[in-house]
Order: sequence, then structure tokens, then C-alpha cells
Amino acid sequence: MTTKFARESYTEMNELVLPNDTNTFGNLMGGRLLYWMDICSAMAAQKHSNSPVVTVSVDNVSFKRSIKLGEVVTIQAQVTRAFSTSMEVRMEIFAQNLPEGTKEKSNEAYYTFVAIDKDNRPSKVPELIPETTLEQKLFEKASQRRALRLILGGKVKPEDALELKNIVNAALKG
Amino acid sequence: MTTKFARESYTEMNELVLPNDTNTFGNLMGGRLLYWMDICSAMAAQKHSNSPVVTVSVDNVSFKRSIKLGEVVTIQAQVTRAFSTSMEVRMEIFAQNLPEGTKEKSNEAYYTFVAIDKDNRPSKVPELIPETTLEQKLFEKASQRRALRLILGGKVKPEDALELKNIVNAALKG
Amino acid sequence: MTTKFARESYTEMNELVLPNDTNTFGNLMGGRLLYWMDICSAMAAQKHSNSPVVTVSVDNVSFKRSIKLGEVVTIQAQVTRAFSTSMEVRMEIFAQNLPEGTKEKSNEAYYTFVAIDKDNRPSKVPELIPETTLEQKLFEKASQRRALRLILGGKVKPEDALELKNIVNAALKG
Amino acid sequence: MTTKFARESYTEMNELVLPNDTNTFGNLMGGRLLYWMDICSAMAAQKHSNSPVVTVSVDNVSFKRSIKLGEVVTIQAQVTRAFSTSMEVRMEIFAQNLPEGTKEKSNEAYYTFVAIDKDNRPSKVPELIPETTLEQKLFEKASQRRALRLILGGKVKPEDALELKNIVNAALKG
Amino acid sequence: MTTKFARESYTEMNELVLPNDTNTFGNLMGGRLLYWMDICSAMAAQKHSNSPVVTVSVDNVSFKRSIKLGEVVTIQAQVTRAFSTSMEVRMEIFAQNLPEGTKEKSNEAYYTFVAIDKDNRPSKVPELIPETTLEQKLFEKASQRRALRLILGGKVKPEDALELKNIVNAALKG
Amino acid sequence: MTTKFARESYTEMNELVLPNDTNTFGNLMGGRLLYWMDICSAMAAQKHSNSPVVTVSVDNVSFKRSIKLGEVVTIQAQVTRAFSTSMEVRMEIFAQNLPEGTKEKSNEAYYTFVAIDKDNRPSKVPELIPETTLEQKLFEKASQRRALRLILGGKVKPEDALELKNIVNAALKG
Repeated sequence: MTTKFARESYTEMNELVLPNDTNTFGNLMGGRLLYWMDICSAMAAQKHSNSPVVTVSVDNVSFKRSIKLGEVVTIQAQVTRAFSTSMEVRMEIFAQNLPEGTKEKSNEAYYTFVAIDKDNRPSKVPELIPETTLEQKLFEKASQRRALRLILGGKVKPEDALELKNIVNAALKG
Repeated sequence: MTTKFARESYTEMNELVLPNDTNTFGNLMGGRLLYWMDICSAMAAQKHSNSPVVTVSVDNVSFKRSIKLGEVVTIQAQVTRAFSTSMEVRMEIFAQNLPEGTKEKSNEAYYTFVAIDKDNRPSKVPELIPETTLEQKLFEKASQRRALRLILGGKVKPEDALELKNIVNAALKG
Repeated sequence: MTTKFARESYTEMNELVLPNDTNTFGNLMGGRLLYWMDICSAMAAQKHSNSPVVTVSVDNVSFKRSIKLGEVVTIQAQVTRAFSTSMEVRMEIFAQNLPEGTKEKSNEAYYTFVAIDKDNRPSKVPELIPETTLEQKLFEKASQRRALRLILGGKVKPEDALELKNIVNAALKG
Repeated sequence: MTTKFARESYTEMNELVLPNDTNTFGNLMGGRLLYWMDICSAMAAQKHSNSPVVTVSVDNVSFKRSIKLGEVVTIQAQVTRAFSTSMEVRMEIFAQNLPEGTKEKSNEAYYTFVAIDKDNRPSKVPELIPETTLEQKLFEKASQRRALRLILGGKVKPEDALELKNIVNAALKG
Repeated sequence: MTTKFARESYTEMNELVLPNDTNTFGNLMGGRLLYWMDICSAMAAQKHSNSPVVTVSVDNVSFKRSIKLGEVVTIQAQVTRAFSTSMEVRMEIFAQNLPEGTKEKSNEAYYTFVAIDKDNRPSKVPELIPETTLEQKLFEKASQRRALRLILGGKVKPEDALELKNIVNAALKG
Repeated sequence: MTTKFARESYTEMNELVLPNDTNTFGNLMGGRLLYWMDICSAMAAQKHSNSPVVTVSVDNVSFKRSIKLGEVVTIQAQVTRAFSTSMEVRMEIFAQNLPEGTKEKSNEAYYTFVAIDKDNRPSKVPELIPETTLEQKLFEKASQRRALRLILGGKVKPEDALELKNIVNAALKG
């Protein structure tokens, strides 16, 4: 199985906020952004795995800034770590008002995908090699986020996993 | 400020999975489901608050079962607790294959909303009164989920909040 | 062939009126409502028949109240009677303004469906058992509506069917 | 108030059936056709009235032929008669398979519209002048269809309108 | 191989400009118009060839008049000439404001299509017979437009074609 | 009036080809690609001008390679030159099959935009400064493309402009 660099999966999406993407106040609906984020991060996961992928989880997402009709949503996605058949993708989301020349960070998020083969079964993905300092930090903390995700997703009971609990406590300590 | 019962916010949405909702395998894309969940839970939050609302956060969502083209997605949403100007909404998601007569639970999720007034500022919402045993349990645990959400959303640093940490530990204990 | 209760086919759909659903006055276009009604009633017919279905007719629909951008359309559908391979579905449509807490009945309608098998041919559907007084009344009057529908659809010439004409006259009497 | 010829309102719409317009069998969904019919007939009513219009009713529609993915739906609409502030529009719908060079009539339908002014109130529309034999026949029978529509729409009780009942009986006689 | 008259391919499309078709100024976006033009001209090319078609080129399009939300776009398409496996389609585009009763020409354009068989390979199309004076003029000039198109599309190197070279040298001298 | 570098307007869009974007052969329709290209190049033009923009022309586009359902369309847009109130944007379009790891150039195109102010009138845009060799070459040739565009768009009569006349005479001689 080959390895791949984190940067090889980098994917950027720019979407113009149109009327049907907004609520009656002219603000982008959170659900439309979650939809675009899913497509953008799925593209990053496909680039890493060279395989079709399915979304398996979305980590806690918080929306800090409202995005307006006519603004441009920029989503930058990159795989942070690969685990056998799954991949964690991190995204940074920005809102640009092009006429005003402003660009503000809206939020960050992590989506997780599994690569699948033609029979719809999980298939192995290449190991990810982080290069930059940020990529290495994100790579290292990925295990903690994964542990938390498994507990929150109900796939591991905390009382059954002392080690996981320690990881989570460490994660929460920052 | 009046109070309202949890059941008054109950909202059900049924959506037929059409071709554009699916990936090349004919499975519902995760992002489309997140979009529908946002609309359904926003309707529940509007029923409780009688006010426009904006999505402020989405808790960890994990997708346990693939949903197919032609199946029906059923989303059942209800407010679990109100906090001054915000509301937590819980959803249960089911996939129905109507020709086969099957209905399976797909997943659960929590979205959080803030009620806003005409000037786009947070506005007070009615207190929520839980009635059934399940509603009471969901009401009580809402504080723990909220603490976890604030930490995961980076709005509270765990080291600054011993009490929050205890809450989170308790939450993780089950 | 098994039988089924009317209530087993009950299906509710809630749709938020978005900008693309409205005309230049910000009112829901009639055609968009007819589209949602088709999907909702098709789901009810599929629940009753456990089979794919195709729309065969729409009875006279009149729109009594304009529905606004940002309001929620609630469609409640239930099969009223089954005839060999076809089913009549009745819908009640409501418009809710959630911030104002209002809910008004917009209109009623009847759509008819045929169940089809894998070769696209009509297939038998279960007999429908009405339970409540309303269900029984709707079940009984279904023959009259069906006779009127066949004449209006040009499938039966009135002069060839004295009995039908009497039914229709009775139907028009109330 | 000026008069207008029937043919001045003639409007033709051609729509290609795309994947999202079809059910899992690749057939055009009835609801999508009803949506296109609403837009096409509204354009015809706007041409006659030179005014915005709202849909007030749809007469019984029956679907006689399934229309396939990739086929072209042709809708031909023309106003048949004007009544003070309302207009009846008749449509003929065809399904064309362009690669095979076939064109078959799918169905006919009548939609009714009211012209509205800037304050959303009904406004007068020009009288319609039929010219061809078909236009004259459609013009004359329009009163009968209107009487039936008012009764079926519950706007007139049959027992309160002996004359209407006679009209309807005549209409049903052919 | 049979022949066909130009008029046999005539196709008209009428589209109502809805909110999602417009920019933040309420004007139809150029890209949406290009999309509708592609569908309309593809229908004309399918009528001529009785075959599926793929778009191979779009000639220079200039937009002379902004089209508003609520206006109707009328596209009239007709094949001007057939070349072995390809067809040139000319369109005239009009913007109608139905409430005001105005209809103005917006622009003209030429799209080119190739007919394809079941294996996705180009297939022969009928010869086109022009009848009216306009059809004959468009037929004759089609060769010139085609030469310019092939050069602009980079499919013919001007240096390989003396006559074409004169065209393009002059064009690039500007 | 400030100046701006060409690279400041660089905009990349990645779109996943979904079922509704394709014809019955599962190939991306040309018109959908033209629509995405319009949005992407408009974003580039807005970045350069810090102003809303309207599309004024599309140069000859030829489609060299069919793009499949499930592939990713990558559009890279950058302003090549500014002329008082208008801007020429060049795009390169690629089709990526992520599971197979392929990326092929599909085509190139030029769209032109005018910046507008709040009253819908053309407004001045910054001068563009090319830096790389490619940017300089595209900048220099932009005048030629513009001359050809004005003639092809019928905005300049060749007989009124001797130099232009040479271009067009040769072009029409073919």
C-alpha cells in the first residue's frame, strides 16, 4: 500500500450564496453549508484514497458568523490522518464579501469518511504522511478526536475503555 | 414569559430520496441529510419560540446505515430544553423502504438554535416543560451536552472551568 | 390478500417555503404545492400497497388562501379506499406561520394512484378497512368520487352509464 | 376595457425530463408535470391580462401515458374565456421521444387564474374573443366547466342553485 | 439518408425567471441563460437528427439587455445546416415582461452539436433543406461560421489551411 | 484608482457532477458547465473590481472531452486584463476522476464582465498588472480578442473601423 502526503488531498470549493440557500433574513442556512462541506470533504477523501467514499460522521460544528446572500463561501479541505479504511478531513470555512473585499473565517469542522470497494465494503486507504508543523499537529491529535468521536457516536462505551477515557480527558485539557 | 410543553414543538418531515440526493452508488449523501435535518429542527425551534431562528451548532452526528434512492427519510424533531435565548433540538432519523414495508432507525442528532428578533439580536424564548419520562431525561442531560458543546466549540477553555470538566466527565461516564 | 387499516397509510410532510417556490409577490406558486402533494400522497399510497405507485389522476383542487415565503406547508395524507389495483388518497393542506404561531387550513385534495409490479403492470393492493366515523364516510363516498372522476377523465361516457349519472347527481346533491 | 383574441395568449413550453424529475422507474412524476403546467398556463393568463396572476383552481387531471427520462414534454396553453377578473386556461400536453421521432398526446387540463393588482386584489381582465371553431366551442362550454368547478370547489352548494345543477347535468350529458 | 426541412427542427422554450436564476440585483445570470439555451438548441438538434446529441461548441454570445426576475425568457431555436455528423443551431432570445406586455430581443447565438450512436460515436445526420430566404442565407453563411469556429476552437491550425490562414492572420493582427 | 495584480483575482471552483447535471448517457451537459463557468469567472471579476458585475459576453467555447457522472469539474479563473469598466476572465477547465486519480484538461474559455454601481451603471475598475510570462502574454493578446469580440458581438461595424475591417473581411471571406 502506497503512502500519500497530506497536501495531495487539498481541495478548495467556492460557492456563491444564491436566494434558495438563504432563510427569510437573507442569511445562508446552516444546513446548506453542511451540505457543501460534505461534498468538499468527500472530494478530499477521494483524492487521498482514489476510491469512492461514504460519510460516516460529522464532528461538532459551531457557526460563529452569519453569511449573507451574494457572499462567497470558501471551503478548504485536507485529509489529516488515515486509519486503515477511514479518513479524517479537516475544513476551514471562510465567508468573502467580494464587492467589499472582506474575507472572514466562519468556522472549522471535521468530517470522517470510509473508502468503499465495488461491493460496498470498506477498503484499505494509503497511509498519510504529514509534512508541515500544522499537518503534524493535526495528525497527532487525530487519535484523540477519533476516540471522542467513537464515544460520542455510541460505538464505544466509556466505562469499557479506561484508556479512551484518559485520551478524552487529555483532549479536553487542550 | 410563557412556558411551553416539549410536545408542542414536535415536527415530522418525510422526504423521498431522489436521484440528485444520491452519490454514484445510489446512496443518500450525508450532506443532503444534514440539510434536511437543519430545516426540520429549525421548524421545531420556531414552533417553540414563535420566532425566527438561526442554527448555532450541530453536535457529533454519525451515520450508521446507508439510505437508498427511492427510500423515504423520516425525521422526527422535538425541542429538549430552552436556555434563555437558545434551544436544543433532538432528532431521530428513520429510513423507510415503503414497497418492502421496512422502517429502520438511521441515527440521532442534536442541533442548537438561537431565536432572533427583527434586528437580528438574540431574543428570549419560553421555558420548556418536559412531561414524559424520556422528555425529562433529555431535559436533565441537556446541561451536560451543552457544556460539552461549549468546550468542543472552543467557547469555553476546559482549564478555566473545573465544574464544566466534571460535567463532561460525568457525561462521558454515561 | 391482506387487509390494512386506513390509519396505517397516514403520512405527514412539512415543507418550508423557500424563495424559488414563490412568485414575484413572495407567494407559494400553486404548481409547487401540487408537486409536494403528489410526493406526499404517493408515499401514503406506497405505505398501503407496499408497492411502487404511479399517479393516475388529480381531482379538482382549489386554492383558497395564499401561502407566503417562510411559512411552513403541512400536508396530511391518508388512503381513503382501495379499488383492486388503485387507491384514492385524501389530503388536507395547512399553512403555518411559525413565528406568529398561526395554522390555517389551505385546501383539500384527492389524488389517485395505481400500484405497479416490476414489469410496470398494475398489481393488486390490500383492501382498506376504515375505522373512525370520518374514515367510514370518506370510504363510502369514494365510489361517487370515482364515478365522477371516470366521467370527467373521459374514461366513461355519461350517456352509456345511467347508474353513474345517478351517482353523480347524488354526489352533486351533497 | 380592451378585448383580446384567444390566440394572443398562446404559450408553448418544452421541457426535457431530467433525472430529478423521475421516480425510481425512470418515469416523469405526476407532480413535476403539474408544476410545469402551472407555470405554462400562468404565462398564458399573464399574456391575456397583462397583469400578475395567481392560480385559483386546477380541474380534474388524468394521466394516460407514462413519460420517460430523456423525453421532451410539450405543453401548449391558451386562454379559453375570461370572466371579469378570472381566466380559464386549457392545456394540451404531449410527450416527444426526439431520437425516435415520436410525439404522443399525454393529456389535457384546465387551470384557472385570477389577475391581481399591486395591492393583491383581483383586477379586471380584457374580454376574450374566440375566432376558430375550436376556440368558440371551448368558449361556450367554459360556463359549464366553471359551474362544475364552483360546486366541486365547495363555493356553491348544489341545492342552492337549481340552474347550476341543470348546467352540470347538461355538462355531464356531453 | 433522408433529408429534412429546416423548419422541422423549430423548438421554442419559455422559461419564467425565478429567484434562484438571478444575482443579488434581481437580474438573470448569464450562466443560467446559457444553460437554457443549451437545452433548447439540443432539442432542435435532436429533432433534426432523431438521435441523441452532445454539445461541441458555443459561438461568441453577447448579452445586450439585462433580464429581470419575473420576466419570461423565450428561446427560439432552429437548425441552420447539417455537416455529416454535426449540426449548427441558431437561437434568438427574447425577454418578455408579460404584465407590461413588452417583448424585446435580447440576443442571438449559435451552438453546435454532434449526433451520437449507442456506442457514443458520431453518427450521420440528414441533410438540411432551407426553404425561406432567411433559412437560405443562414445555410450559406454556415460554412464561414464553421471555419471561424474550427480556428477559434483550435481544431484547425491556420498555417495548415491557406484560405483559413488569411482569415485568422487578419483576425490576430488586430 | 488603484492597480491590482492578476493573481489577486485567482478563483478555483470544484463541482461534483450529480445526476441532474447529466444527459441520458451520464455525461455532463454543456449548458451546466457554461453555468458553473459563469459563476466562477464572475467571482474572479468581483475579486478584481470589488464590485458587483454582470456578464457581457462569452467567447467561442469548444468542448473537447465528455465529462462523466461522479467526476469532479475543476474551474480555474483569473482576470487577464481590465479595460476601463470591463474585465476579461480566462478559465481553464479540468475533469478529474478521483477514484482513478486522473485529471485531464477539458477546455479553455474567456468570459467578459462589466462592473456596475448601485444604480446599475458601469463603474471604473482597477488597472490589472500582469506578472508572470503567461499573464503578460494573455494581457497583450487581450486587445485582439476584444476587437474580435466587439465585431462578432455586432457592437462595432467593420465598415466603420478600417483596422477592424481588415480582420472581419478576412474572417467573412472564408
